[in-house]
Amino acid sequence: MFRTPVADISLALRAADGDNGGVLADVPLDAILGEAARFTGEVLAPLNRVGDREGVRLKDGAVTTAPGWKEAYRRFAEAGWTGVSAPEQYGGQGLPVMVEMAVQEMWNAGAAAFAVGPMLTVGAIEALAAHGAAEIRATYLPRLVAGRWTATMNLTEPQAGSDLGLVATRATRAEDGTYRISGQKIFITYGEHDLAENIVHLVLARLPDAPPGTAGISMFVVPKFLPDAEGTPRARNRVVAAGVENKLGLHGSPTCTMVYDQAVGFLVGEENRGLACMFTMMNLARLSVGIQGVGVAERAYQTALAYARERRQGRGFDAERGPSPIVAHPDVQMMLLRMAALVAASRSLCYACAHAIDMSRRGPANERGAWADRASLLTPVAKAFSTDAAIEVASLGIQVHGGAGYIEETGAAQHLRDARIFAIYEGTNGIQAIDLVTRKLGLRDGAAVTEFTAELRGIADALAMSNRPGIHETVAPLRAAISELEAATAFMSEAAARDRRSALYGASGYLRLFGIVGGAALLAKSAIVGGDDRAGLAAIAKGRFFAQTMLPEASSLRAAMMGAGTAVGADGAALLDMT
Amino acid sequence: MFRTPVADISLALRAADGDNGGVLADVPLDAILGEAARFTGEVLAPLNRVGDREGVRLKDGAVTTAPGWKEAYRRFAEAGWTGVSAPEQYGGQGLPVMVEMAVQEMWNAGAAAFAVGPMLTVGAIEALAAHGAAEIRATYLPRLVAGRWTATMNLTEPQAGSDLGLVATRATRAEDGTYRISGQKIFITYGEHDLAENIVHLVLARLPDAPPGTAGISMFVVPKFLPDAEGTPRARNRVVAAGVENKLGLHGSPTCTMVYDQAVGFLVGEENRGLACMFTMMNLARLSVGIQGVGVAERAYQTALAYARERRQGRGFDAERGPSPIVAHPDVQMMLLRMAALVAASRSLCYACAHAIDMSRRGPANERGAWADRASLLTPVAKAFSTDAAIEVASLGIQVHGGAGYIEETGAAQHLRDARIFAIYEGTNGIQAIDLVTRKLGLRDGAAVTEFTAELRGIADALAMSNRPGIHETVAPLRAAISELEAATAFMSEAAARDRRSALYGASGYLRLFGIVGGAALLAKSAIVGGDDRAGLAAIAKGRFFAQTMLPEASSLRAAMMGAGTAVGADGAALLDMT
Repeated sequence: MFRTPVADISLALRAADGDNGGVLADVPLDAILGEAARFTGEVLAPLNRVGDREGVRLKDGAVTTAPGWKEAYRRFAEAGWTGVSAPEQYGGQGLPVMVEMAVQEMWNAGAAAFAVGPMLTVGAIEALAAHGAAEIRATYLPRLVAGRWTATMNLTEPQAGSDLGLVATRATRAEDGTYRISGQKIFITYGEHDLAENIVHLVLARLPDAPPGTAGISMFVVPKFLPDAEGTPRARNRVVAAGVENKLGLHGSPTCTMVYDQAVGFLVGEENRGLACMFTMMNLARLSVGIQGVGVAERAYQTALAYARERRQGRGFDAERGPSPIVAHPDVQMMLLRMAALVAASRSLCYACAHAIDMSRRGPANERGAWADRASLLTPVAKAFSTDAAIEVASLGIQVHGGAGYIEETGAAQHLRDARIFAIYEGTNGIQAIDLVTRKLGLRDGAAVTEFTAELRGIADALAMSNRPGIHETVAPLRAAISELEAATAFMSEAAARDRRSALYGASGYLRLFGIVGGAALLAKSAIVGGDDRAGLAAIAKGRFFAQTMLPEASSLRAAMMGAGTAVGADGAALLDMT
Repeated sequence: MFRTPVADISLALRAADGDNGGVLADVPLDAILGEAARFTGEVLAPLNRVGDREGVRLKDGAVTTAPGWKEAYRRFAEAGWTGVSAPEQYGGQGLPVMVEMAVQEMWNAGAAAFAVGPMLTVGAIEALAAHGAAEIRATYLPRLVAGRWTATMNLTEPQAGSDLGLVATRATRAEDGTYRISGQKIFITYGEHDLAENIVHLVLARLPDAPPGTAGISMFVVPKFLPDAEGTPRARNRVVAAGVENKLGLHGSPTCTMVYDQAVGFLVGEENRGLACMFTMMNLARLSVGIQGVGVAERAYQTALAYARERRQGRGFDAERGPSPIVAHPDVQMMLLRMAALVAASRSLCYACAHAIDMSRRGPANERGAWADRASLLTPVAKAFSTDAAIEVASLGIQVHGGAGYIEETGAAQHLRDARIFAIYEGTNGIQAIDLVTRKLGLRDGAAVTEFTAELRGIADALAMSNRPGIHETVAPLRAAISELEAATAFMSEAAARDRRSALYGASGYLRLFGIVGGAALLAKSAIVGGDDRAGLAAIAKGRFFAQTMLPEASSLRAAMMGAGTAVGADGAALLDMT
């Protein structure tokens, strides 16, 4: 039985929000988290296995979700969970992104294949609120916020994945000011389903006179059913699901091939500026994917821990006699603590990113720009580090189970299958690394990143001042690791400007280094802020374990990253070209 | 289309065999490898996807394998591939274990779910040849060697996995000198199938008067059909497959629950000494599992490389204009080279272990003991490092594919699903680490391990003397990493004797350190030995990449490993006990 770690989440949120509770000051946090945890346990967690086992069915263009999913979605929408962070003028609760991410984490721990649907709707609400015309906003936003309609992102085409400049879906202007969209999109999450009364596709397409590449892409709203003047869905639009994918995981989530054949669309933002609109949606979606990682990893951890407490084999180190629960074995403890520490560090990174987004919107006006830069800096790290961590945690979860982990009925394997996509979609983790190195390090001539590392130093100083037991041991490894990050940042900033080759070869290693050091420091912040309750003591234990067993990686990551370009060399590249 | 890397395999074998070709001197290596590669490409490789998709079916106690599997097995057996290393007196070819492992690597690259069946038969041949009574050997071995019968290992029971002391299957003595076996065994690979005319189960069970724990376990041969005096399978024995597991991967391989109900069994070896018999089989099986990792990783690498050469997105670093094949992107190159280097290092480790086994049997009489120790030392490392590497390589293979990697039709995901069990069965990798630290480091008072690290130093010296281009860069990282391994070994040897707690907490980290350093050095040996052909140049490129990007991990692994016991601490352990 999955139990949401409300106290851990609450502590991590408070640590990320800072001592004086900037963003969360007026939020009834305990009530919201408690209610979301209850909903997760009662309604979502039971969906997880049935969704995996039954998957979805496509027949005559209509997708049927797994048994129980429709009813669960109805309750989700009725409880108002789609609107947590949506603007109040459209029926949302206008709560901070920090709260949005905390509840999204829970939905993902409950049933990740379910959570990915509402997550995209939240992103679409962001995009339409920012770029939609007044009449689009008036018609679409209240229904999306209420969860009566859901939304999708239509970017990928067979020839256009990471490279959106290759998008070929065509848009033509109709005489009434609307557009006609034709083309094929693939990998469309919840592109078709039976959960809601309408589906709103945000589609990237190209006008006949558009310039080539990314400068010629426009964004359109294409509803499954065209709403009438009152907003009631009426005529079926010419967009159909032509197929659903047979995927490694997330079986409960329909991943559709969508075919547009002169479908009616409405422009969002300006012509040829669609990518900017999409990025509004995508940045939040990237953080949400990091959060997906946190949620699935948390559940994988709990599954493994519960099994390790039950399963008896051998004699544990301190045990008088066997068989002991395998949690008594040192090697199993190492795996479980690594899982716990990775979950906690990922959570801290993601919440710090969410906090920066909130401050960029709600903070003092003269600080908003700097917070927006902070959010831009942390987004690729939160996304990539947390999703890599989720894959590792889920894989360790299988290992803790031994042979039973390989049997699907146990449920451990599903977490790995589900989590594996997180490192790929919304920009592969390799693309996150390129984004970090080539775009984010240069923000405000490097001030954004140096301010962040200075803040990490401040955390280390605060740790050194703390007299809570178990904290002191984290100080030296953290300071050493921050120095490695600073050295790597200096190297990378220089390389990004002058030796792009080294920057690109070392980018993923640099991102991992950034994530480990940032995650360790932000996790340690929870250890400082926490009390003597279980969550507070756990934060100390996890922070210490992370610092002592994972921060030593920092120096080797820096060394490997700096040498990466050389290491590939001409012969390495030749190896890959040879047959 | 999978192409066996015959030249790479041949070079790695020659490097492992040493300059004067001790073991392989009289072996027609090219002919055997070429024929095995042809068989792999033509017969086995096409089975892989159909086995995964169709799986196996159990009906009325009979398992049906996937379409095409029966015919492929018939050809496999007829070609004599089961008998490669089996004794000539039983119809085998009596070839070295090195050759056995090289062809097993190919079978696993072709279709791992197929290969695991013959692999267990080879292990059973070893066990019966060493411990079987004369009449058992005469009846069973020729038929197993010819592949007409197959064999299984029956160790695991629901309550007895890693802890064989808990085995509860009962054996009673019958008046005719045979035994009656009753109980339930789970996770029995190829416990039931339609490929061969008989199935020979090697079963661990407990006599009524047996002492408790592992000292009271006996081993029995329990055939599915009892052979008559001429060896023809006749009466159906009282052993049935009661279920097949729904697994994450290896779908083509039936994993059965076997129920024994007064089944007729024949003792192997002495009563209560069954574990010793089983370990004869298991040590070779552990190396074979390492080889499974190498085979599946090689195929995952080839799949990813082929995709990366085809798929065009973005503009590669040196490209004039896009879209370029994604292999032109630095991040993709880093992933592919890491995959290639991990495959090559794992292969070198496994072949070195196989070479030690061969030398312990065929080498000069006065050296055999030392070689046996070397094999004992390397077995857990070859098994655990290679299988961890396979999981990482298969996961990277998915990542290289991007979104397509998550779609089952691509085939990339299957490699991860298949490989995931390798780190678990035949002793989890955690158990391999405990074996290495608590049993293997103490061999000959530590001389076995110090002789090995001295040999690694010798390789580094030889590298320093080589004037082949691209080799020199590996010397300094390798020497530094060997020093880390030596320091870690000194710490561990001390800890294993006096501070068992630190030894157990650090064991997995130590094994990984051992594998990285050993793998790097043994791979570098291929670079020295190789010529200027593609395989020789590739060995240099992979060795250099491994040394420059992975050997820096050695220092952090040593630091983390030494601190592991402290890092867990009382609060960490408490965290895991709390609810």
